[in-house]
Amino acid sequence: MRIAPTTNPELAAALAAAINNKTKPLGSLGALERLASRLGLVQDTVAPTIRQPAILVFAGDHGIVAEGVSAYPQDVTWQMVENFLAQGAAINVFARQNGVDLHVVDAGVNHDFGARAGLVDRKVGHGTRNFAQEPAMTPEQCATALEHGATLAADLPGNVVGFGEMGIGNTTAAASLMHKLTGIPVADCVGAGTGLSPEGVLRKQRVIEAAVQRHAGIDDPRAVLAMFGGFEIAMMAGAMLKAAALRKVLLIDGFIVTSALLVAARIEPAILDYCVFAHCSDEAGHRRMLQLNLRLGEGTGAALALPLLHAAANFLNEMATFESASVSEKSA
Amino acid sequence: MRIAPTTNPELAAALAAAINNKTKPLGSLGALERLASRLGLVQDTVAPTIRQPAILVFAGDHGIVAEGVSAYPQDVTWQMVENFLAQGAAINVFARQNGVDLHVVDAGVNHDFGARAGLVDRKVGHGTRNFAQEPAMTPEQCATALEHGATLAADLPGNVVGFGEMGIGNTTAAASLMHKLTGIPVADCVGAGTGLSPEGVLRKQRVIEAAVQRHAGIDDPRAVLAMFGGFEIAMMAGAMLKAAALRKVLLIDGFIVTSALLVAARIEPAILDYCVFAHCSDEAGHRRMLQLNLRLGEGTGAALALPLLHAAANFLNEMATFESASVSEKSA
Repeated sequence: MRIAPTTNPELAAALAAAINNKTKPLGSLGALERLASRLGLVQDTVAPTIRQPAILVFAGDHGIVAEGVSAYPQDVTWQMVENFLAQGAAINVFARQNGVDLHVVDAGVNHDFGARAGLVDRKVGHGTRNFAQEPAMTPEQCATALEHGATLAADLPGNVVGFGEMGIGNTTAAASLMHKLTGIPVADCVGAGTGLSPEGVLRKQRVIEAAVQRHAGIDDPRAVLAMFGGFEIAMMAGAMLKAAALRKVLLIDGFIVTSALLVAARIEPAILDYCVFAHCSDEAGHRRMLQLNLRLGEGTGAALALPLLHAAANFLNEMATFESASVSEKSA
Repeated sequence: MRIAPTTNPELAAALAAAINNKTKPLGSLGALERLASRLGLVQDTVAPTIRQPAILVFAGDHGIVAEGVSAYPQDVTWQMVENFLAQGAAINVFARQNGVDLHVVDAGVNHDFGARAGLVDRKVGHGTRNFAQEPAMTPEQCATALEHGATLAADLPGNVVGFGEMGIGNTTAAASLMHKLTGIPVADCVGAGTGLSPEGVLRKQRVIEAAVQRHAGIDDPRAVLAMFGGFEIAMMAGAMLKAAALRKVLLIDGFIVTSALLVAARIEPAILDYCVFAHCSDEAGHRRMLQLNLRLGEGTGAALALPLLHAAANFLNEMATFESASVSEKSA
């Protein structure tokens, strides 16, 4: 599946003219202007639309948690999947608020859910293996995950796809992928994940450095993905590649999603033309994201911030608690 | 009208407990968590709500434009008010998208609109005077503007008020207020406004520096407001003071709105407890604003960014052009 660059100087000029003709100082809608242009280029039109947006949330477990790289026990992965199905998680609240279809995918959770309404079963395995010792997945498992992702993306009716994930240990997988695919030192790729102590972060860094040394010499993106990735990350990368090939807009959320995109971009560099980076994550190694450089006035910034106000009140009123959703709390 | 600080350690602790009990890593909803706590403290509850949000857009003209401080002619102020009434401006698009009541107020535009549906007439004068030579307004005009603002805020049924403005020349007024009320050098308070050249920005800086020297020795916030402010800025400050006294949340948009808040905060420092800063403006001197330091994953950032995607497509499809709304373009 080839992904075509969206380069189109004539259309870009037409979009710029349309944007600049609007009743506002040039450039004063900041990031929204670049966003409008991006939407137009992806959809090959000067009148882009947002049609039936969907968010795919992929869940998977990681053998690397045996090395003590996470603040939470592995059971939290399946417990949070249950929370998604019960509509109690933050993403349920925000998806509901914003009218987004939410699809929860079991890409490889270490738990048997049985057949469940609302859960898309694409389980490749009961969690990956511990990449401190052996490859996280086999080449076949990796290919299967990529294919499942592609099929899921192809089945979506809309033209915008957001990506999300759940998987205890997956910041360790993501940091490893980031280091291998960008060459950025491991120390600059690791963060606190769900809430590690400084000692925990250092431990995580050492675990990754040792694993990277042990499995040196791998460069092919699919091989890197199979060695260090997760089933949810691989399935997400497959979904991204297919969605971009179908000229959908990809909404990129956070550090782990970006690690899947790094893999996809090594396979098909033009995929980046289809991406919108949703926000600036607090996780280290994921700093350069969307800022709304508005300078129009009129209260536009206030209107645009209102959904965030709603979101703040909604999560406080509507999200489940650890107790009500029977989710384990952080270990001491 | 006294504004009470929202300080309430017991409630703050109850809010923190409620937030931390949600199914997410501690702190992982970033700015949304601080926002939820702020809403709770303002509304004196652990279950805050957003009820009938409104945006007040105040328009006014500025005598200082005679000094050549703006890239656009003064007529653009009333033309943009017409554009607001015709639903063609960016704020109309975004207010519509987000279900916000929009109130357009003529605080002192240099134009006779006559009685018009949808325009709130609180005109204090046909623009301020040129503060390069004389005070922008009389103490009586300034007091009238503050009072009108208070009455408008008191009449709002909801519990959230966003503030916006329109007024050619008002970044010059705002930069002067900022310099006078904070002591920050003029050079660090001025920006390109609606699109000045570097030479234009320097000219604006020199105009402000000369005016500040000419009217030295003024320190009282109302006196500073009357000397350098605008009718729309004064009316906004009055509305902010009353809204906070009524324990409404204030949504602060951009540089000019912040200059009105600076005045209000010199009169009643506790007003800052009621403010939410909507975004990071691109205008110089207005850098430290809301960032969404999320680190939850699950696609939450994608869901929250979706309104911005809608906004980008909507302004491109729905906003009027300079031509269709008969608004003058930037002068060469």
